[in-house]
Amino acid sequence: MFTVNNLWVLIATALVFIMHLGFATLEAGFVQRKNVVNILFKNSMIISIGLLTYYFIGYNLMYPGEGYEGGFIGAFGPMDWAAGATADYAAAAEAGATYTGYTDFIFQAMFAATCATIVSGAVAERIKLVPFLIFATLFVAISYPITGMWKWGGGWLDAMGFYDFAGSTLVHAAGGFAALAAIILLGSRRGKYRPDGSVSAIPGHSMPLAAIGVFLLWFGWFGFNGGSVLSADPNGVSLVFVTTSLAAAAGGVAAFFMGYIMFKTYDLSMVLNGILGGLVGITAGADLMSGGESILIGLIAGIIIPLSIVFFDKTLRLDDPVGATSVHGMCGIWGTLAVGIFGASAGIDQLITQLIGTLAVGIFSFATSFAIFSALKAIMGIRVDEEEEIRGLDLGEHDMHAYTLAKEDGVFQLTDSGSSVVR
Amino acid sequence: MFTVNNLWVLIATALVFIMHLGFATLEAGFVQRKNVVNILFKNSMIISIGLLTYYFIGYNLMYPGEGYEGGFIGAFGPMDWAAGATADYAAAAEAGATYTGYTDFIFQAMFAATCATIVSGAVAERIKLVPFLIFATLFVAISYPITGMWKWGGGWLDAMGFYDFAGSTLVHAAGGFAALAAIILLGSRRGKYRPDGSVSAIPGHSMPLAAIGVFLLWFGWFGFNGGSVLSADPNGVSLVFVTTSLAAAAGGVAAFFMGYIMFKTYDLSMVLNGILGGLVGITAGADLMSGGESILIGLIAGIIIPLSIVFFDKTLRLDDPVGATSVHGMCGIWGTLAVGIFGASAGIDQLITQLIGTLAVGIFSFATSFAIFSALKAIMGIRVDEEEEIRGLDLGEHDMHAYTLAKEDGVFQLTDSGSSVVR
Amino acid sequence: MFTVNNLWVLIATALVFIMHLGFATLEAGFVQRKNVVNILFKNSMIISIGLLTYYFIGYNLMYPGEGYEGGFIGAFGPMDWAAGATADYAAAAEAGATYTGYTDFIFQAMFAATCATIVSGAVAERIKLVPFLIFATLFVAISYPITGMWKWGGGWLDAMGFYDFAGSTLVHAAGGFAALAAIILLGSRRGKYRPDGSVSAIPGHSMPLAAIGVFLLWFGWFGFNGGSVLSADPNGVSLVFVTTSLAAAAGGVAAFFMGYIMFKTYDLSMVLNGILGGLVGITAGADLMSGGESILIGLIAGIIIPLSIVFFDKTLRLDDPVGATSVHGMCGIWGTLAVGIFGASAGIDQLITQLIGTLAVGIFSFATSFAIFSALKAIMGIRVDEEEEIRGLDLGEHDMHAYTLAKEDGVFQLTDSGSSVVR
Repeated sequence: MFTVNNLWVLIATALVFIMHLGFATLEAGFVQRKNVVNILFKNSMIISIGLLTYYFIGYNLMYPGEGYEGGFIGAFGPMDWAAGATADYAAAAEAGATYTGYTDFIFQAMFAATCATIVSGAVAERIKLVPFLIFATLFVAISYPITGMWKWGGGWLDAMGFYDFAGSTLVHAAGGFAALAAIILLGSRRGKYRPDGSVSAIPGHSMPLAAIGVFLLWFGWFGFNGGSVLSADPNGVSLVFVTTSLAAAAGGVAAFFMGYIMFKTYDLSMVLNGILGGLVGITAGADLMSGGESILIGLIAGIIIPLSIVFFDKTLRLDDPVGATSVHGMCGIWGTLAVGIFGASAGIDQLITQLIGTLAVGIFSFATSFAIFSALKAIMGIRVDEEEEIRGLDLGEHDMHAYTLAKEDGVFQLTDSGSSVVR
Repeated sequence: MFTVNNLWVLIATALVFIMHLGFATLEAGFVQRKNVVNILFKNSMIISIGLLTYYFIGYNLMYPGEGYEGGFIGAFGPMDWAAGATADYAAAAEAGATYTGYTDFIFQAMFAATCATIVSGAVAERIKLVPFLIFATLFVAISYPITGMWKWGGGWLDAMGFYDFAGSTLVHAAGGFAALAAIILLGSRRGKYRPDGSVSAIPGHSMPLAAIGVFLLWFGWFGFNGGSVLSADPNGVSLVFVTTSLAAAAGGVAAFFMGYIMFKTYDLSMVLNGILGGLVGITAGADLMSGGESILIGLIAGIIIPLSIVFFDKTLRLDDPVGATSVHGMCGIWGTLAVGIFGASAGIDQLITQLIGTLAVGIFSFATSFAIFSALKAIMGIRVDEEEEIRGLDLGEHDMHAYTLAKEDGVFQLTDSGSSVVR
Repeated sequence: MFTVNNLWVLIATALVFIMHLGFATLEAGFVQRKNVVNILFKNSMIISIGLLTYYFIGYNLMYPGEGYEGGFIGAFGPMDWAAGATADYAAAAEAGATYTGYTDFIFQAMFAATCATIVSGAVAERIKLVPFLIFATLFVAISYPITGMWKWGGGWLDAMGFYDFAGSTLVHAAGGFAALAAIILLGSRRGKYRPDGSVSAIPGHSMPLAAIGVFLLWFGWFGFNGGSVLSADPNGVSLVFVTTSLAAAAGGVAAFFMGYIMFKTYDLSMVLNGILGGLVGITAGADLMSGGESILIGLIAGIIIPLSIVFFDKTLRLDDPVGATSVHGMCGIWGTLAVGIFGASAGIDQLITQLIGTLAVGIFSFATSFAIFSALKAIMGIRVDEEEEIRGLDLGEHDMHAYTLAKEDGVFQLTDSGSSVVR
């Protein structure tokens, strides 16, 4: 049984890993052609930095073990398999664990890296590479583990009865609110808000890449939510697969209708983000909901998506190229509150606890992110200069085009900015 | 043991889910650049609608449980975990099930949505979005569960001894024949058949997307066939992995040679469809065949593919942009008949039963699909107007391009129809 | 327990399968737009041919069973489930196996096909299709199984104490050195080395495809290394997931810094290849290393990557479009030696044994590959003619473009070579 539980959490780890490809392609698809290499570079580095950082600092900060119950902050220090988590099979089983300490580390490390990835889409097309990577390192090393510890590490939110099954708040709202701080400090992309007050849509360069991203994220979410059962318990994992899928489907359908009502067209971006909204929304209570309740949660998430995207984009005039603040921030809050409204834990007390928890994590993540980016802005600047933004970050930061045509004998060569060179 | 069986069927569910990304990218790759958003939109909606529809109607219609043995139609009504399937682990185990009712639902729901996706490729580049989505809803809600019930729900084909392990007939031929009805009613794409009688090839816009689709479908097929063992039984699942892989490989190799013989070139589309043909072909008897037999079944499927594609395209002049009628319809029939020719169940009686079963399902699906599309044609029309077809459905239905180049400072902007705007 | 072990090796098989999509997209991304169909075609055929070849010849040559201990070559003859490996569950369990003979075959067959795929990237953009496919057939049928047998089939390297957990040498160095022989015989791509001695960079046509490839390869590596535990043993598989991930991450980070130091830019290709280098490097000892040791191994692999790529490209003037000789050849050797330097088996004797083993396999693979390609060169030629190379192999070998724009009403049509046709 230990072997089966351990195996399932490892397979779930691989599924959560593939979400990083989902984020990479989603974000790459939603940005302009001239900034694609930059997105791919950031996402390749985030997973790499995230895993190492979590090994050296994050894990112990998030899961300090005994003696930290009800606390605000965990322990500093690198991963030590012998302490805290038991790497050895027999010892872990005897200690009542359902998987080894290695499994625990790698599953949690994949989650941590996810949180930083959420930010990368929102700040796309204008942030400097190095400050962003420094932010991602600090965020995964310190901010995410601290707020994560509040609930999953046995801290004060856990003691309060706050519920967040797989991270609507701890991963998604945390990432979404960090993204919000970042885009406030960064400012909008050049040309997004015109002097006359009108808003310019800047379409993504590749809808197939965006769609590949959403399907891969849904696929990976089976591991994200399903693995969060932390065992292969049939009642738990089976239910979570059902609720996760139904919420995603309902999110897509609701965004289809809302998108048509609001924009009078069949808007693929909205449907894709609606599916993601449904997934984020169900994440806090994926193990508590019935089929019907998960459909309702997904439907509401799918309604929130276009409203929230328009609110951020047009009302607040905050420029978020991929809608991360809406998908992860707003639907993260919604999913967390939904645990107090629907399902086995519903109740006004739970609802209030959920509200406190999601606000606390959101505000902390926002504040940390704001502080880190403010410091980076003062020290080295966080935004590329205007000329680089026009030419694109692919040339500016990476001296490379995302797409090139033939080198030889053609009459046409496509460069990153879409300019054609007729030879 | 229950936990292991249940876990495997859930993992298989995730694998079948990713087939939807496979279909999306395959179909997107095989259509013109101006109709890509439309394909991605349809495929995002089909999985979403499919899961919800199967929850509200389809599942009970397909698996009505006791009292429907040998029948023609199941029960109407929404999913009820307590009845029919037992959601609870202990109860399910006691009832002799190998997995929970939740698992049963979500695995079957992924199959149902697959069937509608098959149609979407065949009708691409000319069908109106809303009538197609209405069709997909009705097809997954009613037609697929009725024919599915005939065998997997214990209906009359099951009573007759019809064998269809994982759905060469119940999923693939059903989808393929629904597609056939649709393309007869829709007519060919503008410019496909020229006034002088010649046939114009309309190449797909992205071979990488098409290839990604085929590899993802093969990957997902490990869950489609492997999960259909309905347990983690080593004899069953191991054999199915071997037969599925060998048939796919043989299909690719046979299509390579046939393609070269017929077209005097190394035709990637044929190899990709040959692999899919091998996969569809082995599906009915994946648990019955030896390695050698599965290679033979795959080889024949790979020979059928180019012959059938040319037959539909040139002889019947039926326009199927992705070859769905050949891959899913013809190879679905072939695979179903192969159960009577090769393997443990071979025999003339079995062959006749297989023929009756596949024809019954094919004709029913064709007729239902024909009826639904005829009604939709009369009520709202099913085909976009000529101007929209020329401009592309991406602009016509979605006001969006699949690919855009840079917004700023370029001299060249690519629009969906491939026209270049020099500024 | 048998069921769980068997299931995990099957799931790992599916993960190794998806590495073939990873190789296909990685290689397609790194070549020019005019040679993309050719890459996709080769990779579709390699997996198909590889599985069939391994069924008919390779498996028995590699795993001859009793009586071949310490030997140099296995047994010829097609797969026979009854002998050698026990297909039946009960018999296999009684014989002390942890999975069925079917599982053993299909898992090993996926590995075999991987080895040939490594070569396909290095020879891209100039090799003739048919000789390459003949080479791939012979390599998977004969060369890979012979060297594989030396260790995994119980041959002389195994008897010597050589250690190669999942194939740094047996798969990656074998493939990398076969690639080296091939590119020496083939010569460089036209225009790569200019008459004045300067080296022309030929950028890949699609960085998103390349990045998709690397993430899919990492994803698949969980099965490649994790499945090589050959059971679901929690101690083994959990550790392997951790070491594999940390080495990949460290490889990416090291290549980031080295790339910046060497090229003064943030080079996405280097980071992607650094991740792959880390994965190849950890493969020989993934079950022996601690977290810290796997990070060190990955870091060194990530440092090797840019140095080796520049060494092959500029110093040796050997043209390898995807860096396969560096990623698989050099990091394969590094990973093999690392077993003698770090971890549970470290020691000077082990290091010498590792060196002997990796050189023996590398030299044999190089020699076999050199012999096969030399024979093919004499018989039918292995390189496309200059005109075809300029126009691209997609048109020359496949009469097809990887990407096409709209057929109708546009003013612009993109052909494979990037030439625009204004109508």
